[in-house]
Amino acid sequence: MKKTKWIWCPNAFERYHGMKLHNRRTKGGFHIPPMWRVDAPGRNLFLYKKAETEKEETIVFHANTQNAALRIDHSEWYPEGSVVTVPAGKHMIKVNAHKEDGFPAVYIEGDTYASDGSWRHGSYGGADAHAGYNDMYTELSDNPEVFKFAYKRIEPVKSEDVAGGTLYDFGKESFGNIIFEGVSAKEAEFSAYCGESREEALDYKNSIVKINVKCEDGKYASESVAFRFVFVPDFGAEYTLAADFEYLPVENRGTFKSSDSLINKIYDIAVYTLGLNSREGFFDGIKRDRWVWGGDAYQSFLANYYLAFDSDTVRRTLRILHGDDPVTMHVNTIPDYSFYWVISLWEYYCYTGDLKFIASAYSDMRSLLGFAEGRLSKQGLYEKRGGDWVFVDWAEHFDKDAGPICAEQMLLCRAYECAASCAELMKDTEGAERYSARAKDVREKINALYWDEEKRAFIDEFSTGNRNVTRHANIFAILYDLTTEERKAAIIENVIKNDAVPAIVTPYFKFFELAAMCEIGDFAYVTDMLRSYWGGMVAEGATTFWEKYEPDMKGAEHYAMYGHPYGKSLCHAWGGTTPLYVLGKYILGVRPTSANYETYEVRPCMQELGLGAFSGKVPTPRGDIEVSVSGGEVCVRSDISGGKLILGGEEYVIEKDTPLNIKTI
Amino acid sequence: MKKTKWIWCPNAFERYHGMKLHNRRTKGGFHIPPMWRVDAPGRNLFLYKKAETEKEETIVFHANTQNAALRIDHSEWYPEGSVVTVPAGKHMIKVNAHKEDGFPAVYIEGDTYASDGSWRHGSYGGADAHAGYNDMYTELSDNPEVFKFAYKRIEPVKSEDVAGGTLYDFGKESFGNIIFEGVSAKEAEFSAYCGESREEALDYKNSIVKINVKCEDGKYASESVAFRFVFVPDFGAEYTLAADFEYLPVENRGTFKSSDSLINKIYDIAVYTLGLNSREGFFDGIKRDRWVWGGDAYQSFLANYYLAFDSDTVRRTLRILHGDDPVTMHVNTIPDYSFYWVISLWEYYCYTGDLKFIASAYSDMRSLLGFAEGRLSKQGLYEKRGGDWVFVDWAEHFDKDAGPICAEQMLLCRAYECAASCAELMKDTEGAERYSARAKDVREKINALYWDEEKRAFIDEFSTGNRNVTRHANIFAILYDLTTEERKAAIIENVIKNDAVPAIVTPYFKFFELAAMCEIGDFAYVTDMLRSYWGGMVAEGATTFWEKYEPDMKGAEHYAMYGHPYGKSLCHAWGGTTPLYVLGKYILGVRPTSANYETYEVRPCMQELGLGAFSGKVPTPRGDIEVSVSGGEVCVRSDISGGKLILGGEEYVIEKDTPLNIKTI
Repeated sequence: MKKTKWIWCPNAFERYHGMKLHNRRTKGGFHIPPMWRVDAPGRNLFLYKKAETEKEETIVFHANTQNAALRIDHSEWYPEGSVVTVPAGKHMIKVNAHKEDGFPAVYIEGDTYASDGSWRHGSYGGADAHAGYNDMYTELSDNPEVFKFAYKRIEPVKSEDVAGGTLYDFGKESFGNIIFEGVSAKEAEFSAYCGESREEALDYKNSIVKINVKCEDGKYASESVAFRFVFVPDFGAEYTLAADFEYLPVENRGTFKSSDSLINKIYDIAVYTLGLNSREGFFDGIKRDRWVWGGDAYQSFLANYYLAFDSDTVRRTLRILHGDDPVTMHVNTIPDYSFYWVISLWEYYCYTGDLKFIASAYSDMRSLLGFAEGRLSKQGLYEKRGGDWVFVDWAEHFDKDAGPICAEQMLLCRAYECAASCAELMKDTEGAERYSARAKDVREKINALYWDEEKRAFIDEFSTGNRNVTRHANIFAILYDLTTEERKAAIIENVIKNDAVPAIVTPYFKFFELAAMCEIGDFAYVTDMLRSYWGGMVAEGATTFWEKYEPDMKGAEHYAMYGHPYGKSLCHAWGGTTPLYVLGKYILGVRPTSANYETYEVRPCMQELGLGAFSGKVPTPRGDIEVSVSGGEVCVRSDISGGKLILGGEEYVIEKDTPLNIKTI
Repeated sequence: MKKTKWIWCPNAFERYHGMKLHNRRTKGGFHIPPMWRVDAPGRNLFLYKKAETEKEETIVFHANTQNAALRIDHSEWYPEGSVVTVPAGKHMIKVNAHKEDGFPAVYIEGDTYASDGSWRHGSYGGADAHAGYNDMYTELSDNPEVFKFAYKRIEPVKSEDVAGGTLYDFGKESFGNIIFEGVSAKEAEFSAYCGESREEALDYKNSIVKINVKCEDGKYASESVAFRFVFVPDFGAEYTLAADFEYLPVENRGTFKSSDSLINKIYDIAVYTLGLNSREGFFDGIKRDRWVWGGDAYQSFLANYYLAFDSDTVRRTLRILHGDDPVTMHVNTIPDYSFYWVISLWEYYCYTGDLKFIASAYSDMRSLLGFAEGRLSKQGLYEKRGGDWVFVDWAEHFDKDAGPICAEQMLLCRAYECAASCAELMKDTEGAERYSARAKDVREKINALYWDEEKRAFIDEFSTGNRNVTRHANIFAILYDLTTEERKAAIIENVIKNDAVPAIVTPYFKFFELAAMCEIGDFAYVTDMLRSYWGGMVAEGATTFWEKYEPDMKGAEHYAMYGHPYGKSLCHAWGGTTPLYVLGKYILGVRPTSANYETYEVRPCMQELGLGAFSGKVPTPRGDIEVSVSGGEVCVRSDISGGKLILGGEEYVIEKDTPLNIKTI
């Protein structure tokens, strides 16, 4: 990695690209605004670096704006482009820049003074911090205002003359720029229509993604859009159509393969689904809003730790989700998403050990949790307040307006626990004690107020007296370890394995459900669900997983949602997160037991699940861990030390770079 | 005034133009950055209006960006340009817009729903507020990103072939775009040099304002710059040179005329000086930094109440000076300027009665004073803290690093008093009590800690034991009424009329000095000072008043400052404020005794000052007040009721529109 980087105000990069992506939604070609406050980067920059050198040093000062100036100590100001000699000794270099659009950034060639994260951001009396940077932008020719996607030309696999035009099929869900070339009417203007389904592209009055083509010299490239199908009405001219597939060039280091071809296919589609949604941040879906949502992102983070282990996208996503202080609303206006944000931060540390990021995000964590705390009831519980959207799940099994609901307190409790852990890391003893005490208090209240001794389960809420039991809170209780072992056993019997309790129907909440089922060892439920629910989408021809799947629906019914015939997103991150996460964490069985996989365990699932032989790789920041299971034989090979293979009651030390083979039968 | 206005986020207009002007400084053609945090407007806008109408109403939705959308209640989103019918009944219209450069603004044609200040800004959980607007932008064709200056073509009055080029003289200090036309080398590129003085324009290596001319089709118009002289080196082509004088089109309603032609000339130059500095806000000077500074602005506000009575520029200036919350530094990093900000707010109310503005600025007042309070010493006094620039005056008579200085506590005390008055207006009883108590406390400490019984005067500071006496604090004590009448009498004797105490030498502090002299009735000192100090600049050929004037200097020495041969600003607002303020408030003798001149007094100066007959007009929000004094006869004619003429011990009621003539001899 090169030392010199473009540098900017802390978070400016994430603010800018977050602003752009939240303002990019259209419907039928027209702008649809974001539903929450969108913060923008500052337009003035002040960075400085103090250093001492034994020899003089020549630096070259670049900025992405002419309104920029550099000075050494109290020297004259040097303009952008200057080559300046910094004398030997102790000096302070200051750089200012202003840019009205985009955001100001500077690039300083040099040795000691080369621009990088060691530069400081001057806040004029606030808290100075490290300059912002991103490792993608290390060349002078890089432009941090242009997000560094990769591009690959793709062609339709099929075309069809239909309905007064041509329908192109790219064979699978895609994302990128639609390219018209060789248009014989060189300045033609017309509209084209994209569809995630054939129906959507052809039903051009209703298709979400409309492209207003304006050719110049027989060519046109659209903005980036989601599509599998493109319908181009005849406009009386010849042309060729292709697309520049736009993607984040990260390596999918995680793998999974078994003897079950359906599970393999599900895994592959999940890989592709998460990949398409991995962009400036982890998106919810690529067609409709293309925004960053905290709940969707939470699952993407966890799935990502078993696929690309792309830490930078996790960091960018968390920064986009938080926005500027003061916090005036929950993440995406959703309290659960604020709590997931805090939980995500701690889990990020558990997987990566990236203390530097926790340090830079800790004040954001405090401001977000502080905001949430400021809105708690007198009882110290989360209760819906004006402007809040209590989500929990699309499936509305419980009365969300019935006072404080159990599931929300559980996320609050877990957020407090994670905040306490982060505070300990930051040596914020007072914070750690306070957050721990609050976690304990909320946990006690959950167990006192929501546990129903007759039903032997957590009820949704206590205000109405309905004593309704759904799966959500009970799943959280197991997943986040929020009650006694005795009560967990009761929950498994009375809720989890009780068909009378309404099933989880959304892929979003199935993530939590299947993880909980793995935690209690019911792996067969999990693989059965993969085969039936995700397999159901595969049977419907899905090339990416959907926002929601209802097996009873037929044909184009599947595409409707939110009162719109194509409102459903057919490439939704949360559709793909579950297979990746459960297969990596619970079937291959790999998880860190301390941060950065300094220690870890491999506990492959040895139950008979119809997978036959299976194997795969789990990425870590320090290397990969390979696991294969075949006919009762387990083999683990790891790039890193610190691991234990756990089989039955036995533990085996995993030596770095040394295959460990254990026969269980 | 038309009902429909362009509307935007509160303060977006001031943030935008404040950002632009603070980033516009150059030296020799290169960017010089601001010295403080510069805040920018948000790039996303959310406004709404709830109303009830008996009939349906058609509205037209305009925005300055295509990324804009409007909805009625929960309707579909309508794009920019839509004509929409709002049904009869109760409805809520929401508008969102995003713009990356500039700032988003919308314009809605309609009746009930026409865009204006009754629209609300939605803050997503913060404090919603009235939409921002400015009465200059009421036409659909207006562009709030372009500040609405007026322009007038002006020509050089003289040109001279010299030093390998041509020197143009516009006859007086000017501001605007330098225009090259009819350039025979149609794409010529060359540099031209401006000067406030002949010397500066000719000394092109050192002239502050350099113009990089790039002709297109034989024409070029520069950015707006300050100039009297322009030097154009020969570039081997023909051309004509002119300028578009750029100014704020406000009427100078205040006037002053006497039999003393020097005083008249001083008044006229002061009028011109303040006019040139009245721009997006009140500037310090038009050549060098062209920024908005709180101390300079404070004086401009007061002078403005006696000249154009341009309330909008006062409001814009206060908003530019404050910036966004949280406050992390003093106004311009100068604590005195923070205190002047608070004082200015109350004085603005006293002159205008504009309760609406006080309401919209009250939270800014609290955050600024709150910031200052957070930095007070344990004793509750202002003491210099890191990053602060303790200014008080250019003239460094006192040791600014010697602990808490007296002058600063006096401004703090006055700021608390004014804050208490604003709090009362806002019915913030708790705030009013707290601020009053703090004012009382600071006042007591000033009188206890800084009063020297031996010197019978306020000393600069008590920390060093030097017991040094300068004029500054003692002038504030009189001007802001901060001590007993007995002590004031002692100050007059021991400081004000004591030549052993170093004189005030800057035009900046002469403002406070001359106002204090008027308060104690020494008008002759004031007119003498006008004649000698301001008259001295006139004798040097000044066409506008200077940043600083030192009578002993000769020729081009006058132009040097800050270690630069032309560093001094020759058109500095604070050079012009004093004549306007003292002639209006103390010689014509007009001042409000309650807000908005609901009551006021006219107390013309009847002392023999060598002015002969004098007369003038003082503007108020409700009309003008004319005063003339000639040979012992006083005549007052006023557009407004509520006034009293005070002559000697006598009071006479001023009837609206009815000339009141009183003979005193």
